[in-house]
Amino acid sequence: MNTPAGGSRAEQKRATQARILEHARRIFADVGYDRTTIRAVAAAAGVDPGLVMHYYGSKANLFAQAIDAGSASLPGGTPDEVAEQLLDRLHGSLVEEPVQSLALLRSMLTHPEAARAFRSTARLDKDRIGRSIPDEDAELRAALVNAMLIGIALGRHLLALDHLADADPDRIVEILRPAVRAVVEP
Amino acid sequence: MNTPAGGSRAEQKRATQARILEHARRIFADVGYDRTTIRAVAAAAGVDPGLVMHYYGSKANLFAQAIDAGSASLPGGTPDEVAEQLLDRLHGSLVEEPVQSLALLRSMLTHPEAARAFRSTARLDKDRIGRSIPDEDAELRAALVNAMLIGIALGRHLLALDHLADADPDRIVEILRPAVRAVVEP
Repeated sequence: MNTPAGGSRAEQKRATQARILEHARRIFADVGYDRTTIRAVAAAAGVDPGLVMHYYGSKANLFAQAIDAGSASLPGGTPDEVAEQLLDRLHGSLVEEPVQSLALLRSMLTHPEAARAFRSTARLDKDRIGRSIPDEDAELRAALVNAMLIGIALGRHLLALDHLADADPDRIVEILRPAVRAVVEP
Repeated sequence: MNTPAGGSRAEQKRATQARILEHARRIFADVGYDRTTIRAVAAAAGVDPGLVMHYYGSKANLFAQAIDAGSASLPGGTPDEVAEQLLDRLHGSLVEEPVQSLALLRSMLTHPEAARAFRSTARLDKDRIGRSIPDEDAELRAALVNAMLIGIALGRHLLALDHLADADPDRIVEILRPAVRAVVEP
């Protein structure tokens, strides 16, 4: 077969695209949308900036691809089950927040497209959580627990607040369990 | 007296500086540090960009002045009293978050100086709250309640999350009271 060493052209292209995306995620997560340049992403991935533009067209589109994946959706259930699902997801994100989530969180306050993407993810979560809460304020309670947990993720990963940045995930979940339950189980 | 109409030169200067700072705060709060320009601040305040530079020297210094003021400090006391103080402060910020806080929050994820300023404010709060919690994890609990409430402020004012953006502050405080207590009163 007429295949170059290391795979077909199509495979090489996919590998290069994946590498570009991986470095883009890390840089978006570290410095945010505005301070990320195509040039820096290309340099990190070891390719020409023109190739990044060829594959992704614009920084806005590269960002949209980089944050694509979304957070794990919540299966739902009783308020008690939803509280545990939220705490499980929190635990996972405390151990290691996926870099595409960090890229989104880092930019959501200053890049309108990131804010929109974040709001739509938050809306899905809020709807799912809200359906499990037997209360007239179900939607508000769902939005509040969402916002609380966003604050924890930001404080740990992006702001590196004292004591929160390096605390044991198990201990954090244990302390927050009654607080999360208080909001989702009226 | 040789005073021009509208006050002395010194008074006029102070009034102009205050007007520049007020517009700078609003613009920093709306678009963040990176997207704020001296030119835009000058235009909003109705002065020449050179005058903004003359008074403030640099965008970095203008930002430092704009966010100066800090959040109201917490008097401290029993865990129960601290929980109520936090909820009172939350209520105030839900009714109207001061524009200098918004300027700081908007930029804290993407501007290193804003992140530093935010961390030092958060540290003061955390120390004050932590001293009131009779538990070996006092500092972690204090950092967690801080981060939770930051998430609520961001979700309401900067991300405008569904249901949270326009909810009644009294109702929010009522829903969050048991959650805040659960964290500060082990």
